[in-house]
Amino acid sequence: MPLSQDQQAEIDRQRAESAPTRRPVAPALEEVLYQAIPVLDHGFVRVIDYMGDDTAVVQAARVSYGKGTKKVSEDKGLIHYLMRHRHSTPFEMCEIKFHVKLPIFVARQWIRHRTANVNEYSARYSILDREFYIPAPEQLAAQSVANRQGRGDVLTGPEAERVLDILKRDSTTAYDHYAEMLNESESGEMVDAEKQGLARELARMNLSLNFYTQWYWKIDLHNFMHFLSLRADPHAQYEIRVYADAMLDVLRKWVPLTAEAFEQHRLHAITLSKNALDAIKRMLKGEAVTLETSGLGKREWSELQAVLNGER
Amino acid sequence: MPLSQDQQAEIDRQRAESAPTRRPVAPALEEVLYQAIPVLDHGFVRVIDYMGDDTAVVQAARVSYGKGTKKVSEDKGLIHYLMRHRHSTPFEMCEIKFHVKLPIFVARQWIRHRTANVNEYSARYSILDREFYIPAPEQLAAQSVANRQGRGDVLTGPEAERVLDILKRDSTTAYDHYAEMLNESESGEMVDAEKQGLARELARMNLSLNFYTQWYWKIDLHNFMHFLSLRADPHAQYEIRVYADAMLDVLRKWVPLTAEAFEQHRLHAITLSKNALDAIKRMLKGEAVTLETSGLGKREWSELQAVLNGER
Amino acid sequence: MPLSQDQQAEIDRQRAESAPTRRPVAPALEEVLYQAIPVLDHGFVRVIDYMGDDTAVVQAARVSYGKGTKKVSEDKGLIHYLMRHRHSTPFEMCEIKFHVKLPIFVARQWIRHRTANVNEYSARYSILDREFYIPAPEQLAAQSVANRQGRGDVLTGPEAERVLDILKRDSTTAYDHYAEMLNESESGEMVDAEKQGLARELARMNLSLNFYTQWYWKIDLHNFMHFLSLRADPHAQYEIRVYADAMLDVLRKWVPLTAEAFEQHRLHAITLSKNALDAIKRMLKGEAVTLETSGLGKREWSELQAVLNGER
Amino acid sequence: MPLSQDQQAEIDRQRAESAPTRRPVAPALEEVLYQAIPVLDHGFVRVIDYMGDDTAVVQAARVSYGKGTKKVSEDKGLIHYLMRHRHSTPFEMCEIKFHVKLPIFVARQWIRHRTANVNEYSARYSILDREFYIPAPEQLAAQSVANRQGRGDVLTGPEAERVLDILKRDSTTAYDHYAEMLNESESGEMVDAEKQGLARELARMNLSLNFYTQWYWKIDLHNFMHFLSLRADPHAQYEIRVYADAMLDVLRKWVPLTAEAFEQHRLHAITLSKNALDAIKRMLKGEAVTLETSGLGKREWSELQAVLNGER
Repeated sequence: MPLSQDQQAEIDRQRAESAPTRRPVAPALEEVLYQAIPVLDHGFVRVIDYMGDDTAVVQAARVSYGKGTKKVSEDKGLIHYLMRHRHSTPFEMCEIKFHVKLPIFVARQWIRHRTANVNEYSARYSILDREFYIPAPEQLAAQSVANRQGRGDVLTGPEAERVLDILKRDSTTAYDHYAEMLNESESGEMVDAEKQGLARELARMNLSLNFYTQWYWKIDLHNFMHFLSLRADPHAQYEIRVYADAMLDVLRKWVPLTAEAFEQHRLHAITLSKNALDAIKRMLKGEAVTLETSGLGKREWSELQAVLNGER
Repeated sequence: MPLSQDQQAEIDRQRAESAPTRRPVAPALEEVLYQAIPVLDHGFVRVIDYMGDDTAVVQAARVSYGKGTKKVSEDKGLIHYLMRHRHSTPFEMCEIKFHVKLPIFVARQWIRHRTANVNEYSARYSILDREFYIPAPEQLAAQSVANRQGRGDVLTGPEAERVLDILKRDSTTAYDHYAEMLNESESGEMVDAEKQGLARELARMNLSLNFYTQWYWKIDLHNFMHFLSLRADPHAQYEIRVYADAMLDVLRKWVPLTAEAFEQHRLHAITLSKNALDAIKRMLKGEAVTLETSGLGKREWSELQAVLNGER
Repeated sequence: MPLSQDQQAEIDRQRAESAPTRRPVAPALEEVLYQAIPVLDHGFVRVIDYMGDDTAVVQAARVSYGKGTKKVSEDKGLIHYLMRHRHSTPFEMCEIKFHVKLPIFVARQWIRHRTANVNEYSARYSILDREFYIPAPEQLAAQSVANRQGRGDVLTGPEAERVLDILKRDSTTAYDHYAEMLNESESGEMVDAEKQGLARELARMNLSLNFYTQWYWKIDLHNFMHFLSLRADPHAQYEIRVYADAMLDVLRKWVPLTAEAFEQHRLHAITLSKNALDAIKRMLKGEAVTLETSGLGKREWSELQAVLNGER
Repeated sequence: MPLSQDQQAEIDRQRAESAPTRRPVAPALEEVLYQAIPVLDHGFVRVIDYMGDDTAVVQAARVSYGKGTKKVSEDKGLIHYLMRHRHSTPFEMCEIKFHVKLPIFVARQWIRHRTANVNEYSARYSILDREFYIPAPEQLAAQSVANRQGRGDVLTGPEAERVLDILKRDSTTAYDHYAEMLNESESGEMVDAEKQGLARELARMNLSLNFYTQWYWKIDLHNFMHFLSLRADPHAQYEIRVYADAMLDVLRKWVPLTAEAFEQHRLHAITLSKNALDAIKRMLKGEAVTLETSGLGKREWSELQAVLNGER
């Protein structure tokens, strides 16, 4: 359960307030605003604010004085056109802000997307909670043999038990020692009056990478879709992909036309290299193309086969 | 008058609509939303959308679950603290979007701020209007003798007349010839059926830099203030400063606490170099410091004098 | 001829100097360093500096202590792999810096790429030269009827003559008046002692968009390739495409393995939407797919046909 | 000792190579190129490559055809002018690339500077070394009482011993368990043939934040100085400040004129708010200004006192 009662009460209070605005409103997104969407064992994603909707994309593309939208079918056509031809600036005209709670090792992957604004909870200044990520048994994957950067079969039996035991025990110890070194109660009082307590900015180094952190994260629609295209992808690590999947749902609620175009032209699209395109053209003329005659490397060839056979 | 009747009607229609939202609302900014604030002879600035308000800065700084705000005095204190210590990320959590109509030479200065999102009206695709900037007589300044990048006295008499005549005549001719080369009526019909009409992307090159263009421009609060600190400054060219001044008023309506902190700690603040600080410390001890004994260069010294004498 | 004798002499002097370095050196690029590669009638591109080469990409990808390179075939394989899977960070580890002279309307398209560093010649501070772009007769294209953002047939006969006459005459007049308003000789003396001369920052507004400006432009290899993929593309306006083409040659000299991978996997690659991929899979199974049964829009369908028929 | 013999040998091999270049060369920086400058107990900073030097700043500012430099005194004056007036683009024209080995909690602060290019060693793909940071006894600071984000006195006696013991023991256990879960020898062989071994991307989560990671990090000179101004500052956490201090030395070797101007106008400069400036002006006129009459808040007032008394 990612939220305390106090936190839930704060969220409910904020959700209860409403005021009129002249700005574009996305009703389906308003519906879930501020709510914590659970991810992993203690994490969540909450939409905190947003700017614009599908009509704002159209309006910016037309640099219009009023709403700039025409019939829904024309707006949809324009959005698909913009997406297909990789126009980015109209999509940059919408913005969304999240509050995310996530394990530190996920945060370290996430932060590589430099085009977002981030304000992270500071462990220099504050004390982290006793919350750490333990994978569900079905996510306890072995190292892939084929792919150095991937997962293989799920561990079972004593090996799985041992791994879970290690993770839980080491995390618990790490936090116990963190608290001991801090020598502070939750209300900021010294626990042991004989001790001074280690500086927070030092004590935190004893915590492991599965501890949860949290941040406010704000990004424009174009870069948000770029993030999703990389992280809601089967090659992404499971622990970040579940966040991206939850946020893809948010995208569909926020900008349904854009989301549809994104899934069509980006998320489920593929890129063919010059040689791969040539190979396909020859196949379409009835030629039997093989790895040897394709001009492709082994790996690209097998990826192309997988695509054509619908394996991805 | 920067707007046509049709444009004003579109704006009025959009202003008439209102819907409830759970997001933070900035009432004074809602008041002017979509309205064209006139700048120069044909330009304007219109706020199209915004995300967040003063409380959103506080909320992000606290990475809070609810509103995160406490007493107004505490929020104000926090915002001043963040501004004074140049914390940027909490201010990045608000965003604003403008529709701006501006002369091309102003647009060329403006675009140097790379942290914004821009979607400009395309003269490859569309036809520009017959609108060009002619300075008001009191802005017809001579080249400064002291400062190669500045203005001196205002031109008067025949020289002023001649300049205004040149600017108006050349702009008019440029547009007449642009239209002739395009060979298109406003509704897209050929004017002279014997001609083909030059491609729009080529014809536009005959227009001069005082013609108006327009764009949608979106920026976060932190970078917006950086823009204002450079462009609402006496060293900025008058023609961009008037836009920045109009937008500084928008800032005050949008985030009054942040605006106050910005004016106090950024816009009207000064930076003292190590040597300038040393000089002031010595002055405070009663020492008579001169250019020669100050360790400053001539120019920095005279700038420091101007600051201390209240000349800027 | 884009260069004066003095400028050529300065370049020659700089080319004559050489010093030993421990950094990676790209011999084919050193060969042309500082040389002006002519573009359009008065423009050029000059490589001013560069950081890294193909081995630096490999080295960064491996976060290695030494050169990090293995056999050329392995390095090449790695670079193709990185390009194919859109890894961007290793390519960001190389950097290149250009001096470019270009018409202002080209500069306005170019500057939309916000990930570069730019330092432009300032017409607030300095006086622009009497140099403007006049299209070659074979580039004097009519507006395309099919594509609002494109060129059609080349103008000929009296219409072409009239266009060239307008462009030359208006540019000449614009510059004559610019010089008159400035009232400054090249050496900075007043021409007419009775006049003050208009401020440079104002006088420049009389110049048209075909006048040449110049800048230093620096970009990392990843974003440079992104720029090339958009601007060395048939959809780009001719006047910027010729710059991109010249810079694509520079890319081949600088990082030949990366350039080859870029042309294979980016420049001459295509993206298939989900529906387009499905259509091709059905075609490969022998099905006769039509616009109606493809699930594609009209425009995407005809673009797909063009790709499969080798028309692009 | 941060380097293995093999790593040192690789570095030596690369240092031994040299080739002629036409590019600007910074001799003092070439001297230390590739060498590991030790930081903390196992970390280092190595300069891998650089682009430009002081003359490149001048050249870009002048958009010049040749070297663009004049007398050293004029170049120095220009660089000080650019720095004092916060011109950023000429400084963006130089670039530097580092290889850095650093504790993960330091990496997490460092990465907030989004304007750099980063390629980090991947613990999804590779196995981390058994190297973790243990503070030197004189850095084992207590939490500051005055400043929630700072350090107080150094811990001593049994409390210090206990902290060091915890940090060492927990880190050792974390790594032992990491290795056990991986079930791989250094050469990639399975250790226990009965087990599969946990995926690397999962096993790493057991490591604590004091483990070392490494990355290639590249940044332009302007943003590099911004990084230094924040991180070579007394308010920065000690563990990142020592990296910044080492890199400030690199700056002085690379671009001595720029470094001097940076220290004068940025690093050791101070900013006075509007009210603080007013207070100083009144003091200079002989008025006795107090907290109450200053218009400053308590905290800003005491900071101003500290500055004027030379305590910072």
